[in-house]
Amino acid sequence: MLSTHPPRLARALRALADQQLDALVLTPGPDLQYLTGFTHGHAGERLLALVLRADGGSRWVVPAMNVAQVRPHAAEDHPVISWSDADTYFPALADALAGAKSIAFDEEARAGFLLDLISIAPAARLHKSSSIIRPLRIRKDASELAALRIAAAAADKTIGEAISFCRPDRTENQIDQDLRAALLANGPGQSIAFTIIASGPNGAHPHHETASRAVQEGDIVILDFGTREPGGYPSDITVTCSVGEPAAPDARRIYKIVYDAQQAALAAVRPGVTAEAVDRAARSVIEKAGLGAHFLHRTGHGLGLAIHEHPYIVAGNTQPLEEGMVFSIEPGIYLPGRFGVRLEVITAVGRDGAVLLNAPSAAELPIVGQ
Amino acid sequence: MLSTHPPRLARALRALADQQLDALVLTPGPDLQYLTGFTHGHAGERLLALVLRADGGSRWVVPAMNVAQVRPHAAEDHPVISWSDADTYFPALADALAGAKSIAFDEEARAGFLLDLISIAPAARLHKSSSIIRPLRIRKDASELAALRIAAAAADKTIGEAISFCRPDRTENQIDQDLRAALLANGPGQSIAFTIIASGPNGAHPHHETASRAVQEGDIVILDFGTREPGGYPSDITVTCSVGEPAAPDARRIYKIVYDAQQAALAAVRPGVTAEAVDRAARSVIEKAGLGAHFLHRTGHGLGLAIHEHPYIVAGNTQPLEEGMVFSIEPGIYLPGRFGVRLEVITAVGRDGAVLLNAPSAAELPIVGQ
Repeated sequence: MLSTHPPRLARALRALADQQLDALVLTPGPDLQYLTGFTHGHAGERLLALVLRADGGSRWVVPAMNVAQVRPHAAEDHPVISWSDADTYFPALADALAGAKSIAFDEEARAGFLLDLISIAPAARLHKSSSIIRPLRIRKDASELAALRIAAAAADKTIGEAISFCRPDRTENQIDQDLRAALLANGPGQSIAFTIIASGPNGAHPHHETASRAVQEGDIVILDFGTREPGGYPSDITVTCSVGEPAAPDARRIYKIVYDAQQAALAAVRPGVTAEAVDRAARSVIEKAGLGAHFLHRTGHGLGLAIHEHPYIVAGNTQPLEEGMVFSIEPGIYLPGRFGVRLEVITAVGRDGAVLLNAPSAAELPIVGQ
Repeated sequence: MLSTHPPRLARALRALADQQLDALVLTPGPDLQYLTGFTHGHAGERLLALVLRADGGSRWVVPAMNVAQVRPHAAEDHPVISWSDADTYFPALADALAGAKSIAFDEEARAGFLLDLISIAPAARLHKSSSIIRPLRIRKDASELAALRIAAAAADKTIGEAISFCRPDRTENQIDQDLRAALLANGPGQSIAFTIIASGPNGAHPHHETASRAVQEGDIVILDFGTREPGGYPSDITVTCSVGEPAAPDARRIYKIVYDAQQAALAAVRPGVTAEAVDRAARSVIEKAGLGAHFLHRTGHGLGLAIHEHPYIVAGNTQPLEEGMVFSIEPGIYLPGRFGVRLEVITAVGRDGAVLLNAPSAAELPIVGQ
């Protein structure tokens, strides 16, 4: 990774000017990483920010203790202004924003910083940083696609093992531990982005947190996991399997509906099609099966430096897809008290349609031990 | 842990009324956990919020997929209003805030949610949630102190092992792996809150991120780590050791200055003394040694459901200490390019002075292998 990205910074500054915004405030997170390569996590309650100004007064505002970490990421003409705990960051931030009447602010920053900014510049018109950065980040360039493929490969390579870990009497936590070790072994140099193991009735909660439940013979288990390659680009896939023959007589049928919904969505992907049309393609399949009320979430989310980012594949999103966009296709059916099925792959938008970054989902319910 | 805390909710509602605020918006994080026991992490870009209203219209606004996780934490008279990805949360949030003219907002929420709120209620006066919740959280009750002691015990028990892991040619990452395993073994049922291993010149960065540097004979190493007990209360301690005889001739002297600064701060702690007076007590010792410019940060931070919270032990904080407050005392000296020394313990404010939750820091520089 470059430590700074001059062309991206230049595009962000041009977008500020084009939209007649005076300043853009970014704190540690994916937007700042995208522009500068800075990845040193969050500075918590201490403000660490890059303040870009359309008028050329751009600068960093940085806790004294983080100055050395920031310097390699600061453009030559962006001074690093440090502040001490005793002085607080208010004077430095007020200086950095002096005269700014319209300010775009990092949506993933702590709201407390925005409340401070409002107290400093109560008359400023506030905007979301995404108005500046989203158009830059939403299409992935070749190096980003390559990074996403490296992460995707580690996740794909782990699918077989992940399924094999789902044996009777093992708890979700135990499976999780094995899954994490396998992900690290299959992705040298990568880290774990997240893991979800949801067995039996827990699978009916799309965002179940892995717990102490022991898997039972006949359970349906959802495994949702991803890594991050060293540059920060993640993987994110979901597989669903059965621990031996499924106890639920309709499990194979539900699986097939979700699979068909996923295929329908993937078939709908191509440049010019709206994000909501792809959601509709998946949703129609599940609705026709009479299970629309059990597909509790959107069909997918963009994937880049953030695991959830634009474009969201959701009703109401009329944004046309463009070549280079990357997102998940992950329909699911959730049957309260019984089980859930979700299948997720990541796809890029190619000139002629979907270009999967992952191996395709299994067409039939995988049975552990077979 | 209780799943809801009716007395705490009642106090928050009373504070709203007292401060003539109409509503308080909390998202997943320590404030919400404190009031309701809800701990299911963050819902990311999806708004999950408790909206408390002074006029009695309090409710939860929750993504459809999280409703079952929220229900056990919702008070009987706080309906759980769910929204779907297709509808977005705007209508539900607008409804929840209808008529509210002054709104306190969660400082740890994503700023994007606050920007959305501003677009919904552009005329509302905005305040920080801390004006309501800080006075509640800043003094720990007996059950909170007991939880903090359980976490502190796991960290204390690990100190000896942590130091023994710092052997020549082992990388910070390897030491980190061993440290994490030891913390989990010493704190059954606890999780890792964070770890920092900063060896040799890396120790001169107070917030160094553990890296691939191999420890060398004669290095000074800073180990800063903590756990969380099952209820979410953390530990946070820092020890500094030398890998064999220190290569730096002044290492023992620097260590002693930091130790004396820590003792001076602890001696200053008692009800009625200001937070800044405690900072001054530590800082004076380091300044008298001519090293004031190398003590780059405040003397400490409050510790509770958040690892950094009020009271901050920092110049400018004139808040008088009260019995039941809990915070770190962690002076440090950072010598660029050479090494750093930091010593941290957690203390409660007792009736007559500091009541350590941790074992005291070693009075002399620990030497690995001796």
